[in-house]
Amino acid sequence: MPSVRTLPAVFTFALLFANVLLPAQTPLDIMPLPAHAIVGTGSLTLDGSFQIAIEGYTEPRLERARDRFLTNLNSKTGIPFRLAPAGRPTLIIKTGGPSKPVQQLGEDESYHLEISTSQAILTAPTPLGTLHGLQTFLQLVKPKPQGFAVVSATIDDTPRFPWRGLMIDVGRHFMPLGVIRQTLDGMEAVKLNVFHWHLSEDQGFRVESKLYPFLQQKGSDGNYYTQDQVRDIIAYARDRGIRVIPEFDMPGHATSWFVGYPNLASGKGPYSIERKWGVFDPAMDPTRESTYEFLDRLLGEMTALFPDPYFHIGGDECNGKEWDANPRIQQYMHQHGLKDDAALQAYFTGRVQRLVTKRGKVTVGWDEVLQPDTPKDVVIQSWRGADSLAQAAQRGNRGILSAGYYIDLNQPASQHYAVDPLADAAAKLTPEQQSNILGGEATMWSEYVTPESIGGRIWPRTAAIAERLWSPKQVADVDSMYRRLAIVSNDLEYSGQTYEAMREQMLRRMVETPEITPLKVLASVVEPPKEYARESLASYDSFTPLNKMVDAVPAESDRAREFHHLAQAIAEGKATSEQWQQAREWLILWRDNDATLQQVLPLSSITSELEPVSHSLSLTATIGLSSLDSLQTHKPVSASVRQEQLTFLKSAEAPQAVLLDMVVPSVELLLQATKTE
Amino acid sequence: MPSVRTLPAVFTFALLFANVLLPAQTPLDIMPLPAHAIVGTGSLTLDGSFQIAIEGYTEPRLERARDRFLTNLNSKTGIPFRLAPAGRPTLIIKTGGPSKPVQQLGEDESYHLEISTSQAILTAPTPLGTLHGLQTFLQLVKPKPQGFAVVSATIDDTPRFPWRGLMIDVGRHFMPLGVIRQTLDGMEAVKLNVFHWHLSEDQGFRVESKLYPFLQQKGSDGNYYTQDQVRDIIAYARDRGIRVIPEFDMPGHATSWFVGYPNLASGKGPYSIERKWGVFDPAMDPTRESTYEFLDRLLGEMTALFPDPYFHIGGDECNGKEWDANPRIQQYMHQHGLKDDAALQAYFTGRVQRLVTKRGKVTVGWDEVLQPDTPKDVVIQSWRGADSLAQAAQRGNRGILSAGYYIDLNQPASQHYAVDPLADAAAKLTPEQQSNILGGEATMWSEYVTPESIGGRIWPRTAAIAERLWSPKQVADVDSMYRRLAIVSNDLEYSGQTYEAMREQMLRRMVETPEITPLKVLASVVEPPKEYARESLASYDSFTPLNKMVDAVPAESDRAREFHHLAQAIAEGKATSEQWQQAREWLILWRDNDATLQQVLPLSSITSELEPVSHSLSLTATIGLSSLDSLQTHKPVSASVRQEQLTFLKSAEAPQAVLLDMVVPSVELLLQATKTE
Repeated sequence: MPSVRTLPAVFTFALLFANVLLPAQTPLDIMPLPAHAIVGTGSLTLDGSFQIAIEGYTEPRLERARDRFLTNLNSKTGIPFRLAPAGRPTLIIKTGGPSKPVQQLGEDESYHLEISTSQAILTAPTPLGTLHGLQTFLQLVKPKPQGFAVVSATIDDTPRFPWRGLMIDVGRHFMPLGVIRQTLDGMEAVKLNVFHWHLSEDQGFRVESKLYPFLQQKGSDGNYYTQDQVRDIIAYARDRGIRVIPEFDMPGHATSWFVGYPNLASGKGPYSIERKWGVFDPAMDPTRESTYEFLDRLLGEMTALFPDPYFHIGGDECNGKEWDANPRIQQYMHQHGLKDDAALQAYFTGRVQRLVTKRGKVTVGWDEVLQPDTPKDVVIQSWRGADSLAQAAQRGNRGILSAGYYIDLNQPASQHYAVDPLADAAAKLTPEQQSNILGGEATMWSEYVTPESIGGRIWPRTAAIAERLWSPKQVADVDSMYRRLAIVSNDLEYSGQTYEAMREQMLRRMVETPEITPLKVLASVVEPPKEYARESLASYDSFTPLNKMVDAVPAESDRAREFHHLAQAIAEGKATSEQWQQAREWLILWRDNDATLQQVLPLSSITSELEPVSHSLSLTATIGLSSLDSLQTHKPVSASVRQEQLTFLKSAEAPQAVLLDMVVPSVELLLQATKTE
Repeated sequence: MPSVRTLPAVFTFALLFANVLLPAQTPLDIMPLPAHAIVGTGSLTLDGSFQIAIEGYTEPRLERARDRFLTNLNSKTGIPFRLAPAGRPTLIIKTGGPSKPVQQLGEDESYHLEISTSQAILTAPTPLGTLHGLQTFLQLVKPKPQGFAVVSATIDDTPRFPWRGLMIDVGRHFMPLGVIRQTLDGMEAVKLNVFHWHLSEDQGFRVESKLYPFLQQKGSDGNYYTQDQVRDIIAYARDRGIRVIPEFDMPGHATSWFVGYPNLASGKGPYSIERKWGVFDPAMDPTRESTYEFLDRLLGEMTALFPDPYFHIGGDECNGKEWDANPRIQQYMHQHGLKDDAALQAYFTGRVQRLVTKRGKVTVGWDEVLQPDTPKDVVIQSWRGADSLAQAAQRGNRGILSAGYYIDLNQPASQHYAVDPLADAAAKLTPEQQSNILGGEATMWSEYVTPESIGGRIWPRTAAIAERLWSPKQVADVDSMYRRLAIVSNDLEYSGQTYEAMREQMLRRMVETPEITPLKVLASVVEPPKEYARESLASYDSFTPLNKMVDAVPAESDRAREFHHLAQAIAEGKATSEQWQQAREWLILWRDNDATLQQVLPLSSITSELEPVSHSLSLTATIGLSSLDSLQTHKPVSASVRQEQLTFLKSAEAPQAVLLDMVVPSVELLLQATKTE
């Protein structure tokens, strides 16, 4: 019996819409793709008699994982499953033994999944692998002619990197426990294993300290996690094979600390919770012993609360202005031969790092903590770029990559997917140096997200980053990634994500009418501005409602990407007649949508700013249609008309209402392909 | 090369949505409509400075209501609100004093809402009115050109009926606490005030008894509410102005009791939990004193657990077969002059009713409990019809109407809306007799709903029933109701309902492809069979997956109703050119959808049965289009073609795949309107 090797995968993408509509041709439509898989023939059908059995080693976590699996399987199939039906088990779980009481970096996460047409057996050395294997199985369940089924396969899977994280900034916008749990559910589904909890910021100190209660009482507007809640989240994460790394950002990004404890700061005070976004002056005073006494006690409390052996002390973006302005600090620097702010911060970091070490923990910090005398056991989280990560690895520090994984910057999944922790400068390192690169972390900074919109920013793009960090390096086909991303995005709903529904709600409330199809047509082809463009396009602070279209739409327009494929095929003369027709139909839709939408947009303050956006889309589509006509009939476009159109398109590239019209580049492509007189 | 339309045909949006896009013309787009309202000019704008103040009397429930109001207002607007911002309050709440510790039937629920362009004042004698007034205010919030705003108005509101209920059957399909809470949230939004919890059935005994633990241990498959959970739900309901009435159904519908306590039954046993739907033979033995000793203790426990003064003992559909088959019972009947099963049940009901009375509670029962000697304080819940309710009221018993409000039967909202508790036979009663009619209850029997689908069966139609029970009798305009129902359906999402998202999920999982637009086109014009038709169309029991299209679609197709309006206008020769065009575009969409959908349907066991449904819709639409042509050109249809088409349409009226094609009646109308040769 011939079997098909699934990796490296090759996918045809000829008939775009046939592909969207028809089920996948590839054997394993899951994400992340496993390290090794052999797909057999036939499949294992699941019905109400489905039974799951744990054989050999078990623990309460495995039983909870089994129950959760059944709940999610029910959600994905609508089939009611029972815990103990009659008959032989459909899925047998065999776990070798326990994992460490506190999940460790680099523990064995591998699993082996053997699916025949009559039974599946999941084997793993530890519960960590079992958890991952269950997610693989769940993703493999598909509706088939004979019923819900899992394809016959032999899967041997293990992650490429041991540190696969997601950071959530709960400082700038607080995220309630429900959002954190939901995020952990999503992380489990795509096999991420580190939840990096960015707990303090200029805008808020988000965890209860019993030793220094003014931290949360005066620094959080009442929005903080109690220690019991933190313990609950840590247990919830452990149940899902996820470590929890807390971050207390210092010496900068710490204004909220100073509201209750102004003596920690280098300025005169008094301080109030920061309400704006950016880099601010307040910084801890590295020159007073009282600062370290405070931190020693606080770190004692927090390192006890968070059991993970790694502890993040931030260290980013301290501008040193309060230091520069404080004569006492200047004098101290002079006396101690600290030649600049960087040296002073290095001194501070060294002191804090020793406090962390004293508690038996490994320090993690952003790029800035890496200084010539930084101890080798400090882990560097690189936000500046792959180069600084490689430098750290070269000098013997371990590191994790976040540059390129900033999911708050609204870049396409393909861009994150292309970022490999071992590429570029890291590719030139020795294997030993490369082994210092532990993996990466997607970072969800929260200036522009609220509890209702954060899910739509994290997902589904973070699944692509999860694949980059889990799957073999050669799993890099972008078309395959996008095809599977659409599938996993649906799957994520069955494990509790609600971002699609939230997007719909956010669009609905913008207008009074219940019928929002025309609004959705516009929403389907616009995107938020990229990188840091948004902050210059409008004025924002903590209290700004994030209830505009830019907040409701995905970072990346699937429809615009699909249209771009069509435009490329047409421009290159390779389009099929179906593609021609599809392009035309979409352009007509976008052109005509404006007339209807303009009836509604002025009636709501949230949508009135969309009037020029919709109008511009209509004009863009009109140019697209005339370009199609010209290309189809081979009639040249007059030079003056063409110039006029190009000028318009150029202007339409600029954001309007903090939105990018993503059809413009494709229409430019079409127009450029026409012949001119 | 023939074009393959892979996505629904492009239509001219300007015409398609013109009629539904324009905002409401009526001043108050809320549901239920208030008893009295005067709409002023101007409106009160809401922004981040919105502040709500409780003046005078307060209690924790009011503070929680305020916090919940702010949460929902944030969800509806996306504006972050703070509990104590600076400035003068936007909304002032003045509550006269407390309501009763246990909410009573007939307590004052009125409120007065005065909204000016600068401030709103909500006044109510008790917190019950305050709660209702807050919901009115919340529904009045609309996106306007100047921002979110509430229209200037003076509202004096009070309910028409004091008993406005929703019954949930958790016996046949257990509903987890989350579903119960979510339902109570929805009830609060539309001012329903009685949650009738149908807690026991042949298929399950759903509440913990500490005195008779085998009830839940052997009679529930582990799916029951603990007493602590029940208390939590009662508190949750009270917070929302909702009474909780428990129902323990007896002497029939009680198989699950007998699994643990077979001596209660009239048959030999042993018994097992019933897995099928219907009326079953097992019944309590009314002839043994041990039955009443058991019930006395159990009712003592349950009347203490549920504080409401009303207690429901069921009493419906006891078929008496076990009684007929038991010689001992027959002998007892003979000895005591009980001439038939009805007399025996009356005897039983009388005994049980005295046990309830002994605990200081008022008995509620279904129609069947009403017998010649039934005490006047027994409340009759009428499922048989308005006549039996009127009879009860005439003889001095109070009653509540459920006939006509069976939301599990998938009837249109308009049908429920037309049912008035004081119409028909009740209209001929004296005012005093009419006052015995307390109101009504929507009933959600759960043979065909699961936790994921129940919301979509309850909402939004139950909001129309809520209006019938709250608003003045003359509020009866069906077009207005449907228009506002669409608005309130969106509003319900902002108070936590998720039925739209669940419907989407249920459709998505039916097929493997992420693109489900063609499936949604089909779903938009089919409906579940009405009344009890479903049970004869397929075989169902407790374990049957309810994951087909019939489970995902609403009871009522909005699109089909809209199309029917068009067809009527066209058939009557009154249609505008926009209506002609819209009808044509929809018919083209339905005709052409099939070609795409047939590529997908055979690939999943859940959708393969939809092949003939989709094909039939296509043929129906084709006939509709040819009828439109004939009507437009005044060309007669040949008699034989017309007869052939009529025959087809007649056959297409029958359910296929347990679904009704709701386009058929409208196309029949069009065809009938054509001229024949």
